[in-house]
Amino acid sequence: MTTNATALIAPSTGAAFERGQIPRRDLGADDVRIAIAYAGICHSDIHQVRSEWGPGTFPMVPGHEIAGVVTEVGPEVTDFQPGDRVGVGCFVDSCGECEPCQASEEQFCTRGTVMTYNSQEYSGEPTYGGYSTEVVVRAGYVLRIPEELSLDAAAPLLCAGITTYSPLRHWNAGPGKRVAVVGMGGLGHMAVKYAHALGAHVTVLSQTRSKEDDGRRFGADDYRATSEDGTLESLRGSFDLIINTVSADVDLDALLATLTLDGVLVFVGLPENPQSLSVFSLTSARRVVTGSNIGGIRETQEMLDFSAEHGIAAEVEVISADDVDAAYERVLRSDVRYRFVIDVDTL
Amino acid sequence: MTTNATALIAPSTGAAFERGQIPRRDLGADDVRIAIAYAGICHSDIHQVRSEWGPGTFPMVPGHEIAGVVTEVGPEVTDFQPGDRVGVGCFVDSCGECEPCQASEEQFCTRGTVMTYNSQEYSGEPTYGGYSTEVVVRAGYVLRIPEELSLDAAAPLLCAGITTYSPLRHWNAGPGKRVAVVGMGGLGHMAVKYAHALGAHVTVLSQTRSKEDDGRRFGADDYRATSEDGTLESLRGSFDLIINTVSADVDLDALLATLTLDGVLVFVGLPENPQSLSVFSLTSARRVVTGSNIGGIRETQEMLDFSAEHGIAAEVEVISADDVDAAYERVLRSDVRYRFVIDVDTL
Repeated sequence: MTTNATALIAPSTGAAFERGQIPRRDLGADDVRIAIAYAGICHSDIHQVRSEWGPGTFPMVPGHEIAGVVTEVGPEVTDFQPGDRVGVGCFVDSCGECEPCQASEEQFCTRGTVMTYNSQEYSGEPTYGGYSTEVVVRAGYVLRIPEELSLDAAAPLLCAGITTYSPLRHWNAGPGKRVAVVGMGGLGHMAVKYAHALGAHVTVLSQTRSKEDDGRRFGADDYRATSEDGTLESLRGSFDLIINTVSADVDLDALLATLTLDGVLVFVGLPENPQSLSVFSLTSARRVVTGSNIGGIRETQEMLDFSAEHGIAAEVEVISADDVDAAYERVLRSDVRYRFVIDVDTL
Repeated sequence: MTTNATALIAPSTGAAFERGQIPRRDLGADDVRIAIAYAGICHSDIHQVRSEWGPGTFPMVPGHEIAGVVTEVGPEVTDFQPGDRVGVGCFVDSCGECEPCQASEEQFCTRGTVMTYNSQEYSGEPTYGGYSTEVVVRAGYVLRIPEELSLDAAAPLLCAGITTYSPLRHWNAGPGKRVAVVGMGGLGHMAVKYAHALGAHVTVLSQTRSKEDDGRRFGADDYRATSEDGTLESLRGSFDLIINTVSADVDLDALLATLTLDGVLVFVGLPENPQSLSVFSLTSARRVVTGSNIGGIRETQEMLDFSAEHGIAAEVEVISADDVDAAYERVLRSDVRYRFVIDVDTL
């Protein structure tokens, strides 16, 4: 038994979106039904609709930055009730039993996390994402959106927010730490806000100075343009932590040279090509290269609560469902400040 | 004013060694004069004599795995006296004032650590290493060799020992941790001994099984040959820590896949070529790639004391000064179990 929801559907790789109906399962005992209000557009939506991360499963409904309101809960659900403001992020289920799941690091579930779209439930049913009027999700994978946050600006926190918050926390960004954020896009602008709110000294490393005013408004203490000669050379040994949010290839050795002893560079963007580095860049100051992948449910809730407490949300441009194809083109041109969010009422 | 010492001197890049005289400075107030008994042959000696790490300074006297006996101390030296069994490692001075020096991480001195050879003192004088009858070193850079350790088997600890001990400690190898050691040479055999003594479960990843008996004798719980099909695939997610001791290029993605969530791969070998990796190998389990570079004076002393306590020393083949050129050829063929040590009495 299923109900139907209206959705923006990509019928095949790279095709334009069409309005259509998708099945949503009947409410299970621990399920929550959510009327979606807003869905953010993440660059990874584009990668997946275009099958750039391997062949996608079609028809595809992207969207893993979901904000809405609970409409119905299953009989075993005690944490939520109709009317609650909630969010859903990049995944909707995990095994619950492996070591990462037990540690609420469900994104690293060894059975394989069930992603919000372009994935399948453990039952084998395909998953459809947030470009849709409604979704049914197990209560344990639903986040509470604090009253202080508007739903449109909260939606991107479910991916862009947690993706940047998690490595900042994991690597102890805070007072006395010098953090560099590479890239000032959807991820980067959130990284600046969180790093600043955590008390770190924040430097933006962007290609140009075009977003400098924004960067400083978001909390950057310093702003450098990497297209200007000598920028990275002048920053040798300057940082304890670099959050690299760009998906393009980077000159890893040049970036690593800006880290001090025991400094850490975290990839949160996902370059398609292999990246290369000289081992001397690591050994010469015991530097670390690592990556981070969204965050677990517990940490995602912590991020939402932290955001509310510090008045942090995404900078969004709310668009109509009719404008999603055009918005994708603008994302690819980096012509967005800083996240598109679909008003699902327009669906 | 200087005195002379007899040494094995490489007159120019790649040339055979010749016996000759080198100057050693007169004893300063905080200096220790050491009669060298043994000097280990490290692969990096070969790299430097052959100018493979950039042009070397010639004439060159290699050797940074030095064990001997104190013969004389300056008036301000209180920690050592004639007759003490001592060692000198990879460096003989540092600024003493920068943050790393203050933390006894002198190997990362921001002014530039004075290396034991192929380097220069802050005064500008060239440094000459341990293939020599005598050396004069500031007391703060001299290590105490515990009575339990023979001087010949202790010499390699000053480089091969600390190089492997330091990352094992830094990344918390111990009970419940699964450590893989890549390579079973001079560094690798020490890594196996230390990881085992620290209580970790130890797996050797060697090209072949030719050294398996040795590996198990040194404390390996498991021993795998990477030349056998499917070895790394069968070890996916198996390790918390990999110490990579080989200087050859590695398939970094294949190695990283053997790490579990938050697992760490440490380079202690120094491949000449850039190494490449897929960022997905990092993000998919928050894995870390890093490097380690010998260790500071405090940790080097800790390593020597730990070695004495646990009966750990290098496996050495003691050779005469006449055999050093031939020994270099054997090192390049990996024909050594596991470290050549020059008997300086034969000089």
